[in-house]
Amino acid sequence: MLTAAPSLESQMLQAGARARAAASALAQAPSDARTAALNGMARNLRAARDAILAANADDVARAKAIGRDAAFIDRLALSPERLEAIAAGVETIAALPDPVGVTTDDWTRPNGLRIARVRTPLGVIGMIFESRPNVAADASALAIRSGNAIILRGGSDSAESVNALSAPLRAALRDADLPEDAIQTAPSADRDAVGMMLDGLGGAIDVIIPRGGKSLVERVQREARVPVFAHLEGICHTYVHERADAEKAIVITVNAKMRRVSVCGATETLLVDQSIAPSLLPRVADALREAGCVLRGDAQARAITPMQEATEQDWRTEYLAPILSVRVVAGIDEAIAHIARYGSQHTESIVTEDAAMAEAFLRRVDSAIVLHNASTQFADGGEFGFGGEIGIATGRLHARGPVGAEQLTTFKYVVRGDGQVRP
Amino acid sequence: MLTAAPSLESQMLQAGARARAAASALAQAPSDARTAALNGMARNLRAARDAILAANADDVARAKAIGRDAAFIDRLALSPERLEAIAAGVETIAALPDPVGVTTDDWTRPNGLRIARVRTPLGVIGMIFESRPNVAADASALAIRSGNAIILRGGSDSAESVNALSAPLRAALRDADLPEDAIQTAPSADRDAVGMMLDGLGGAIDVIIPRGGKSLVERVQREARVPVFAHLEGICHTYVHERADAEKAIVITVNAKMRRVSVCGATETLLVDQSIAPSLLPRVADALREAGCVLRGDAQARAITPMQEATEQDWRTEYLAPILSVRVVAGIDEAIAHIARYGSQHTESIVTEDAAMAEAFLRRVDSAIVLHNASTQFADGGEFGFGGEIGIATGRLHARGPVGAEQLTTFKYVVRGDGQVRP
Repeated sequence: MLTAAPSLESQMLQAGARARAAASALAQAPSDARTAALNGMARNLRAARDAILAANADDVARAKAIGRDAAFIDRLALSPERLEAIAAGVETIAALPDPVGVTTDDWTRPNGLRIARVRTPLGVIGMIFESRPNVAADASALAIRSGNAIILRGGSDSAESVNALSAPLRAALRDADLPEDAIQTAPSADRDAVGMMLDGLGGAIDVIIPRGGKSLVERVQREARVPVFAHLEGICHTYVHERADAEKAIVITVNAKMRRVSVCGATETLLVDQSIAPSLLPRVADALREAGCVLRGDAQARAITPMQEATEQDWRTEYLAPILSVRVVAGIDEAIAHIARYGSQHTESIVTEDAAMAEAFLRRVDSAIVLHNASTQFADGGEFGFGGEIGIATGRLHARGPVGAEQLTTFKYVVRGDGQVRP
Repeated sequence: MLTAAPSLESQMLQAGARARAAASALAQAPSDARTAALNGMARNLRAARDAILAANADDVARAKAIGRDAAFIDRLALSPERLEAIAAGVETIAALPDPVGVTTDDWTRPNGLRIARVRTPLGVIGMIFESRPNVAADASALAIRSGNAIILRGGSDSAESVNALSAPLRAALRDADLPEDAIQTAPSADRDAVGMMLDGLGGAIDVIIPRGGKSLVERVQREARVPVFAHLEGICHTYVHERADAEKAIVITVNAKMRRVSVCGATETLLVDQSIAPSLLPRVADALREAGCVLRGDAQARAITPMQEATEQDWRTEYLAPILSVRVVAGIDEAIAHIARYGSQHTESIVTEDAAMAEAFLRRVDSAIVLHNASTQFADGGEFGFGGEIGIATGRLHARGPVGAEQLTTFKYVVRGDGQVRP
């Protein structure tokens, strides 16, 4: 007798239903069980090292065979050191305070009703990512810490690595008497699986989190029928105010641009007040060039120190490369207006010794992260003390900035009475 | 020379752009200016009383002429008393603490960076409602309290009333040197205007809030391309546990069902433990019938006291009428399972003197509001102390339960350093 294989759609819907059921069970489970599972995940990842590295070697060999470039291979490849870092990251998340069940606010009404706002898990997270297999472990750990189920859908290039990583994670859930379906991998690398997740799997997915290049995030933001935590790009600004300390301005700007040029918190545009530009900009430019950075400036900047010409398009470009656009501005109003016009509401910093100007910038700039006298490269969940991040969001609802375990929760109102009825 | 009238689409997009600009200005405005505007709104509403009532009388006459029923006319009609209540409501909101700029969390990192989470306005709210004109004033006041701009789109039946209400609101913004475009009415009663708002007006709208019947909310949830704060229905449960105090159970159940049957927090299903049902259910049933309620029960309930038969469909029905479905359950697990299966994650209450059982119910039931020994009709922003509500949400992201001024804010991270760079 022949049995037809279940369709991709029915497989995906079943995965969603299993995730929903697992999320319900997980939400009821004690904090200790989830902590035990997380510590078990770290142990299991170390124990499964050889299997994971072998699977990853297969993925890497296939990627090389189809001509993927060196940067792609670097994102895909695991090593004993990288795997140890993944396991250590899971342990860090295991040690985080449990956000679930925490009362964030409570008050008593005149009629005696006591109302509390209590954190609860969000539910089911759909994680859509590309070649970096470590995302599977990082995201799963943050999901379990916050009492959520997760469905992982990695790129087809990393499919074997992701399966090899998720097996020990699921085993750790079982060992802690938690439902292993709280962590699932999409049953197929078929591109249609992504579309089904963006549709919410029949209401099973509460939020989609994409991690990857701009085209992936664009597709997710365009097509998703469920909420998305994401940033499309990080066009971050460092603004050097006329009352900046010159040494801080140089050190912060070089770090903000050049520490790692490929991260979303890297500064892409430097704004400098015109009163300080003649003295400061040549020094900043020298330091940047020495670090390997190419500068593109407006007319005023180029009149001060030679650099390429910046076009209108430069102000809108996330280079993710050792290139910095430079603009001389009349003062804080012009700097804030430039950021409002060209920025991506991700991360912006002001360098100044003038406390009032700093506070004005921090208040007026409408970005997820605003900094004073610090590098934009601090835009990172680990640097914020979140023990990791599942992504960085530039949307305005629910999650903004680095998304850690706490922002993977929602809340409910718990009302305790003694027979009150409403008049 | 002939000039073509601008298309509805271009008018709507312009309204969106003006709202976005107004929101930016409003976010920068001091709290005092917004408070002054809110108090001015209340004054202006009272001063414009005759014009508002005249416009409303026109709307009512038109509604009667096209055969709208009495309940519809009641929702639409204003009176001097109702208008005074609207003005007083705006004053209540004016007196609320300003949520904008409040630091909800702050900490210092080992490197000395001081990180604060600070509330900021959401941006632009798209309010889509039906016949009740008071929504225009209530929603506008909550939007301005929280620093947001709002675009109002009422039903065509209430168009004149809404315009007459919004004029004094806008005047109060002008008088407080705030942008009047922070409150706008959609330029047309054309149904297509709703579709354009659900599409976000080119990114101008941050959240849509529908207020009205189920078909409106369904359309909004189905078509919206931007986040929505809403509840489709309130299938609320009162669960009488075996250790309930009988008097409390009777008073709470009658209030939860019958205080007002048309509100979303009205109880639609009563669950009673089988051990207490034989003694308690006849008394509860008598009290409900005396208040004018029709009962529909499962077999066990009907064996105890006569009532209509409840079908599977009854457990899924929001009656919004003096009808109550009744089910006898084996205990708390069965009660929670029933709520998980048939409920709408809105509001549920347990009546019991057993503190441990109460806490289990409050923890395990996954609804926006869970109560112990209190009526489900407390599901209301005013009763929560929010000074009003723009709606009640059963979604899981950002806003849940009664949505007041605080939940119309988002946040940003403000990071203060002294030259820190990332290693």
